[in-house]
Amino acid sequence: MAELPNCQTLLLEQVEGVLYVTLNRPDSRNAMSLAMVEELRAVLRAVRGDQAVRALVLRGAEGHFCAGGDIKDMAGARAKGGDAYRELNRAFGSLLEEAQYAPQVLVAVLEGAVLGGGFGLACVSDIAITHQGAKFGLPETSLGILPAQIAPFVVKRIGLTQTRRLALTAARFDGAEALRLGLVHFSEADDQAVVDRLAECLQQIRQCAPGANAATKALLLATETENLGSLLDHAAGQFAEAVLGGEGMEGTMAFVQKRKPKWAE
Amino acid sequence: MAELPNCQTLLLEQVEGVLYVTLNRPDSRNAMSLAMVEELRAVLRAVRGDQAVRALVLRGAEGHFCAGGDIKDMAGARAKGGDAYRELNRAFGSLLEEAQYAPQVLVAVLEGAVLGGGFGLACVSDIAITHQGAKFGLPETSLGILPAQIAPFVVKRIGLTQTRRLALTAARFDGAEALRLGLVHFSEADDQAVVDRLAECLQQIRQCAPGANAATKALLLATETENLGSLLDHAAGQFAEAVLGGEGMEGTMAFVQKRKPKWAE
Amino acid sequence: MAELPNCQTLLLEQVEGVLYVTLNRPDSRNAMSLAMVEELRAVLRAVRGDQAVRALVLRGAEGHFCAGGDIKDMAGARAKGGDAYRELNRAFGSLLEEAQYAPQVLVAVLEGAVLGGGFGLACVSDIAITHQGAKFGLPETSLGILPAQIAPFVVKRIGLTQTRRLALTAARFDGAEALRLGLVHFSEADDQAVVDRLAECLQQIRQCAPGANAATKALLLATETENLGSLLDHAAGQFAEAVLGGEGMEGTMAFVQKRKPKWAE
Repeated sequence: MAELPNCQTLLLEQVEGVLYVTLNRPDSRNAMSLAMVEELRAVLRAVRGDQAVRALVLRGAEGHFCAGGDIKDMAGARAKGGDAYRELNRAFGSLLEEAQYAPQVLVAVLEGAVLGGGFGLACVSDIAITHQGAKFGLPETSLGILPAQIAPFVVKRIGLTQTRRLALTAARFDGAEALRLGLVHFSEADDQAVVDRLAECLQQIRQCAPGANAATKALLLATETENLGSLLDHAAGQFAEAVLGGEGMEGTMAFVQKRKPKWAE
Repeated sequence: MAELPNCQTLLLEQVEGVLYVTLNRPDSRNAMSLAMVEELRAVLRAVRGDQAVRALVLRGAEGHFCAGGDIKDMAGARAKGGDAYRELNRAFGSLLEEAQYAPQVLVAVLEGAVLGGGFGLACVSDIAITHQGAKFGLPETSLGILPAQIAPFVVKRIGLTQTRRLALTAARFDGAEALRLGLVHFSEADDQAVVDRLAECLQQIRQCAPGANAATKALLLATETENLGSLLDHAAGQFAEAVLGGEGMEGTMAFVQKRKPKWAE
Repeated sequence: MAELPNCQTLLLEQVEGVLYVTLNRPDSRNAMSLAMVEELRAVLRAVRGDQAVRALVLRGAEGHFCAGGDIKDMAGARAKGGDAYRELNRAFGSLLEEAQYAPQVLVAVLEGAVLGGGFGLACVSDIAITHQGAKFGLPETSLGILPAQIAPFVVKRIGLTQTRRLALTAARFDGAEALRLGLVHFSEADDQAVVDRLAECLQQIRQCAPGANAATKALLLATETENLGSLLDHAAGQFAEAVLGGEGMEGTMAFVQKRKPKWAE
């Protein structure tokens, strides 16, 4: 089991290969402070090489996912000048990049406020489950500022067409609309349905080999930057490795023997 | 207020920060003539640096948006030979590029014919509102020609999967289907609902700071061409500028004082 | 009429400009063997330059489209070592690339199992029509292996957001969900409705000029790799050629004369 950092802004719980990460600043609707950004990055680093952690479940304490950037940090940076703002902002972008490339399956459970930076975090999840009543939005330009680190991840998530409207109107919308836009994979009517859907998804993830999942996720993300021909060449090499490796041997043998592979027991 | 060019094919009206541009060749269902292309480009140039114009509303006179390229221009070009066709066609592509990159929020109001070039124009809007009964389609290949300048913008708008079917079958479809395909953001059942939706969108745009909106739009479009790391670096710098600039100061102060920022009054 | 290769794993039938290609290994739910990959590639090569073949209809024999890679080939490759796996896998990727770039309109008719490699084939079609009861899925990681050649085409087809969930959970889904995800263009409730929809699509394709369709398809695919400015420059040249070419002359003349162009008779 991975050694996890000590956190002030996060609750961490590790159960059966799943690390539950709860944003825990409920007084500010789990607004993303610089401390929280750094703690999330430390957690991702700690589990990066740990195949025993197969999924990360990211959610917020007490009815909200995350209401965006923290206003006190903003005030603190103002005292220090432009460079402090730039670094504060870029650190959040680095968190999004690192979360996007986490080898684990990242599941986001969304409810209440999913705004600004919280919206950005939702956009790097592999599976997003929302409560239908959640409130999504990009309020930045209505405050005279920019969804600077968030925007590129929103475009990747739901495409340019939908992003341009949302970012240029600061419009709010609910979970049903988030499903329609392709921002989330599931919108559920009540708390119990959210719990059930999460259990179902985690069960499906357990059917999949951890190494194969990590390699597949890296391959999917590489389609954004690598040209098709060289990507397919590399992928063929990875395929051969996977088939001849431990998971491939176990998986195909289990299939022939009509039993579950070890990782799914 | 921006000085606007004299136009033969367009009606222009400027009201409360919104420039209404009406394609006005109703006898040919507002077919896109070379003159109209050049006038639209001149209008976009005229308002490009004018932050007092916060939104452009593009629509067509007398019940049609735009039925595509103008047949008389095509005949004229035929007399002049291949280069004339090439230039005629490329000029329309330049219009689409310039409209895509307009710093204002571009709102398209669609009804009647939205075909060929009209379809292309719809694809570069930030917000598209359609009457449910509008008729969309890419008829080019059924005429033995190509949606040459339009196709790349359609792919960006609705993705390759949907575009390939539409372009290779010349299929027609209505506003409800345009919504389902993600071509438009709203499909409304009648004229009044279109008017109401437009008013709502313009009201939302007025809540957003003009400079922040222009910078955000440029950032969204840059995701198509810039790699993620350098985009996030630039965006962090822009974020710091915005926070410390006039809009950022006003926006965050208004938020703390629980009042509307000046641009939203 | 194109001279077609002799095939053991495919049924071929050419009718009125349409080549029907049926995957015909029903005992293994038309699993994709290396022989089938090579025969499909040979068929695509044979018709590549043949404008008399305007559409390819790809389907599976006896109630299944294609259940994925063939297990016997996998066993054979195991005996030969890693290089054999790599080549086997890459050959399938080459098939997907060549099918993607076929100048004809590629129509996939999906029913029963559409898994793994079958899922990949569906993703390179221009038009996909599914029976609502079809079963789609990417089971690879649940077998300890990777959807190596398939994944990039799935991302292009339905986007990263949906692909990451499907590939990392091996979840199964039906035709209605395939429609919602944008994987297919039509999901039909019964066999007759599938037949009717196919007839409608082929009829629409016949309205479109073969050369214009081939050039348009190449242009759409080029948007994935070419930058916008140079793409528009090339497209303008192609537009001029098309207008002055035989199809353009016939198409615009037929339009003026209110008759069908020759290719649509």
